[in-house]
Amino acid sequence: MPNATTALDAALAYADAHLEESLGRLTEIVRIKSISTDPAYKAEVQRAADWVVAELETQGFEASARATPGHPVVIGHNLAGNGPHVVFYAHYDVQPVDPLELWNTDPFEPTLVKQPDGETHIVARGTSDDKGQLLTFLEACRAWKATAGSLPLKVTVLSEGEEETGGKSLPAVLEAARAELDADIALICGTDLWTRQTPAIVAMLRGLVGEEIEITCASHDLHSGMYGNTARNPIQVLADIIASLRNPDGSVAIEGFYDDVKELPAEIADLWKRLPYDEAAFLANAGLSSSAGEQGRTVLEQTRARPTCEINGITGGYTGEGFKTVIPAKASAKISFRLVSEMDPVKIRAAFRKHVQDRLPPDATVTFAEHGGSPAVTVPHDGPLLRKAAAALQDEWGNETAIIGSGGSIPVAGQFKSILGLDTLLIGFALGDDRIHSPNEKYNLSSFHKGIRSWIRILAALAD
Amino acid sequence: MPNATTALDAALAYADAHLEESLGRLTEIVRIKSISTDPAYKAEVQRAADWVVAELETQGFEASARATPGHPVVIGHNLAGNGPHVVFYAHYDVQPVDPLELWNTDPFEPTLVKQPDGETHIVARGTSDDKGQLLTFLEACRAWKATAGSLPLKVTVLSEGEEETGGKSLPAVLEAARAELDADIALICGTDLWTRQTPAIVAMLRGLVGEEIEITCASHDLHSGMYGNTARNPIQVLADIIASLRNPDGSVAIEGFYDDVKELPAEIADLWKRLPYDEAAFLANAGLSSSAGEQGRTVLEQTRARPTCEINGITGGYTGEGFKTVIPAKASAKISFRLVSEMDPVKIRAAFRKHVQDRLPPDATVTFAEHGGSPAVTVPHDGPLLRKAAAALQDEWGNETAIIGSGGSIPVAGQFKSILGLDTLLIGFALGDDRIHSPNEKYNLSSFHKGIRSWIRILAALAD
Repeated sequence: MPNATTALDAALAYADAHLEESLGRLTEIVRIKSISTDPAYKAEVQRAADWVVAELETQGFEASARATPGHPVVIGHNLAGNGPHVVFYAHYDVQPVDPLELWNTDPFEPTLVKQPDGETHIVARGTSDDKGQLLTFLEACRAWKATAGSLPLKVTVLSEGEEETGGKSLPAVLEAARAELDADIALICGTDLWTRQTPAIVAMLRGLVGEEIEITCASHDLHSGMYGNTARNPIQVLADIIASLRNPDGSVAIEGFYDDVKELPAEIADLWKRLPYDEAAFLANAGLSSSAGEQGRTVLEQTRARPTCEINGITGGYTGEGFKTVIPAKASAKISFRLVSEMDPVKIRAAFRKHVQDRLPPDATVTFAEHGGSPAVTVPHDGPLLRKAAAALQDEWGNETAIIGSGGSIPVAGQFKSILGLDTLLIGFALGDDRIHSPNEKYNLSSFHKGIRSWIRILAALAD
Repeated sequence: MPNATTALDAALAYADAHLEESLGRLTEIVRIKSISTDPAYKAEVQRAADWVVAELETQGFEASARATPGHPVVIGHNLAGNGPHVVFYAHYDVQPVDPLELWNTDPFEPTLVKQPDGETHIVARGTSDDKGQLLTFLEACRAWKATAGSLPLKVTVLSEGEEETGGKSLPAVLEAARAELDADIALICGTDLWTRQTPAIVAMLRGLVGEEIEITCASHDLHSGMYGNTARNPIQVLADIIASLRNPDGSVAIEGFYDDVKELPAEIADLWKRLPYDEAAFLANAGLSSSAGEQGRTVLEQTRARPTCEINGITGGYTGEGFKTVIPAKASAKISFRLVSEMDPVKIRAAFRKHVQDRLPPDATVTFAEHGGSPAVTVPHDGPLLRKAAAALQDEWGNETAIIGSGGSIPVAGQFKSILGLDTLLIGFALGDDRIHSPNEKYNLSSFHKGIRSWIRILAALAD
């Protein structure tokens, strides 16, 4: 292997010089209509898997499309290198394109559209979610192979075709391929840049506990003229319970809820204060003007590093047009908890249920239904691989890398942890305005180009 | 006019001797399928109106079926007598009969069914609600006419055919017939006995205010992973507001809510303590074991003499199968208030709206929709006509008459008050187990027979 810096420069130069060809390969895969939710496109999904296998083989990977009860999972290995072993994940399936009439161009024909701000958009379904992001990595590997003759470290590429349909087949494939996937770290390319100039690594994902509660009082619906006042009203009971879930300061009032919540490491807290972030704009995007949750916490903390309790749905009694003077027998709500740090889904569920049980008045009973539970996924912010990746990104973008958390959960990252024991760095180059899942989806050409260059740098950095 | 007691005895003896013929006339009108909600039965509803007109004319009433945009209103006058003028009301339309397969006998063919307890049930649609009750009065008039040659006082009979569809046409008819209906008191026959041996006069009806509130926070539904904690959740806001509507002692927490609520007159409060009433059984019928409302108030008071605030419906967010981690933009509830004494619907509605407005957190807005408002209808418990009717009922049944309140509202009574300025005595002979609106509706033969005898006595008493 030649001098590292020279090799890196060569790979970067190759990527710059061959961007047109990279775009050509992106065009090829985007043209394949791999809509995973629609059985009519089953053969197209298979074609996309085959395309990825062929592309990996061209680069010298040993690759195959593994059959599943749903769509195939592609796994390709290139383990010739000496460095650590990374498993890279992105998905090759896409969302449906309807309503078709809202697209300005053919959704499966990538079209370059110059923007007033100087940016160029690659417009087509899947350019941002997730074929464009998949190819940033594959093109980076190609550049290394073309210039250095080999990859700087051991790489396994894993690409599924069911991400948009719930990813049901993946866990069994991970279980079966455990030995092949015995790696040092996982890399997932599906997330956003922090800003168009600021790279990001998502190192924390909140967990999720879903609960449904149903309160029953009377044996049947009652007439409020006959029983009003004296009959326990389950909507009132449910409202009282929901009201009791939050303290006046906005914190969650369930006993022990915060026991296993850790404060952000000082380094990360400081970084978050430095990151360009417009709280007011974030709230205004939702038509809001102030933050409702825990007082004294920033919006960034609240949405990415603090646990929460949200009522996602409620129903009871008469909800149609007009009015009905009924005291219903039942009322129910769907409630979810986002978890952070070491919070245990089992413990949180139990604490919530006890909170409800403790507040049941006479003649009210409750039944609970469980809607999933997963812990938070956190990568140590000071791990050596994370630090190397962050430095590589900073080298490419010229700005400090945002080490951030995501408010939502990304199931694949949880599965990598629980099934393979792998920490994951989520690194992506998408932007909030990419219109994923919507008409006129786009990926910035700069995201694609600098994304390829970013991975070239990260592969070198992780090998180091 | 012969000696009053002799005349009363003669009329009662006539009713006893001619019960078979009275039942025959009940059979005639019950056979007419006057289902007012179903346009297919429009001609049958007209036939029932015509039957009532003919029956009144047979007895010497001057009667006609007044056309309305809906079904006719029958008005018949017999103003020959010298005494006060009473307006009697009952309705001649009935509920649909489905599900037909649950009926044990033809719903429109009255069938006498002997019961193990010695009672005989007249089983058919409308026997209890309200044709049987209508005929108790008409048969009482017939007995007076047959034995004394005339009624002991001036009587107007008013019978509508839209009670089961909301009675939309009646107010305009009352307005138009104001002069004809210039009476001393109204009598409505549609209510229950207190027990099978205890007669009742309903002298208080609670009023009703209906409100719908919708809370809006964000401009659109949000993802709870992205906005959870920081975005104001309208379900939480709505639950907090609903929780704030009741004090810990079960009373309604809206400022000024009880300002115009009067305590029961001591005489009525004492009577209610004496009345046979099984709180536990009333609650157990609804599957309940304890009273939920205002502490320190009996169930009778709470349901018939105290105001209330009930949540009749609530909805917000995702309420389908499974789970969706949404923070909805909106949540709404339907809320009703039962009013007593001098409570003003306009004032209560305004106080409620202020209560809500005062509790809106930042980023939450509310819209209100009005679903009707009517004050309570109360007849002075010590009025001379009420006392006479109560004494007459006690003479017939041998037990003290229950002067009670009804928890629900009976719109006709409100219209008699607001349009005609008439107080109403609600006197009826139905029973709680009559299955009105349900398959196998029945009216006890004893309700019918003693109902006729009761009206014979009441007519004499009011004339006195």
